[in-house]
Amino acid sequence: MSKKEISPCPIDVTLSVIDGRWKGTIMWRLLDGPMRTSELRKSIPEITERMLIRHLRDMTASGILHRQQDQQSSVRVQYSITPYGMTLVPVLDALCTWGRQHLQRQISS
Amino acid sequence: MSKKEISPCPIDVTLSVIDGRWKGTIMWRLLDGPMRTSELRKSIPEITERMLIRHLRDMTASGILHRQQDQQSSVRVQYSITPYGMTLVPVLDALCTWGRQHLQRQISS
Repeated sequence: MSKKEISPCPIDVTLSVIDGRWKGTIMWRLLDGPMRTSELRKSIPEITERMLIRHLRDMTASGILHRQQDQQSSVRVQYSITPYGMTLVPVLDALCTWGRQHLQRQISS
Repeated sequence: MSKKEISPCPIDVTLSVIDGRWKGTIMWRLLDGPMRTSELRKSIPEITERMLIRHLRDMTASGILHRQQDQQSSVRVQYSITPYGMTLVPVLDALCTWGRQHLQRQISS
């Protein structure tokens, strides 16, 4: 397929899932294990409550996050990465590796 | 390093370079070779002239694109991926592969 053709770009498809300013960061945080909304909020100081909630809703709808109510408290919810969301890990890894190199390059230039 | 710590996320660093709605798509188009602004515009029908120009300026500033004036016409400019920009190719590949699978998944569900 010629990439000069007018066709939907699969890169966009992925970016639409992980993008939205903080979605990559949310995935990155959750790689260590499930977290509550309040924990996620604290770990990403720049994000607003409203934006976090919206991102979590989008990511749950995309099938990459799982929303689970705490068994002890119905108010508390936990988010975790679904098995399907885990297929995004190599993508996030690639983004992460390049980002580290780019940071180094910016520091040394 | 614990990812729950408050720290800059390398994923964000990469997304800030390739993101901005159409930057991934622009890279994807340019993988086939240098293109003029008008050619890029035609290959991405949803993008506005203004947004394209802004993205091209950002990407040139990040060092991932090279802007070259046409030798026959000083008005015409061509854009190509720099050697540094080429280091993003594995990242774009990962985004692309996942995007294709996600499209398939959406079609079959």
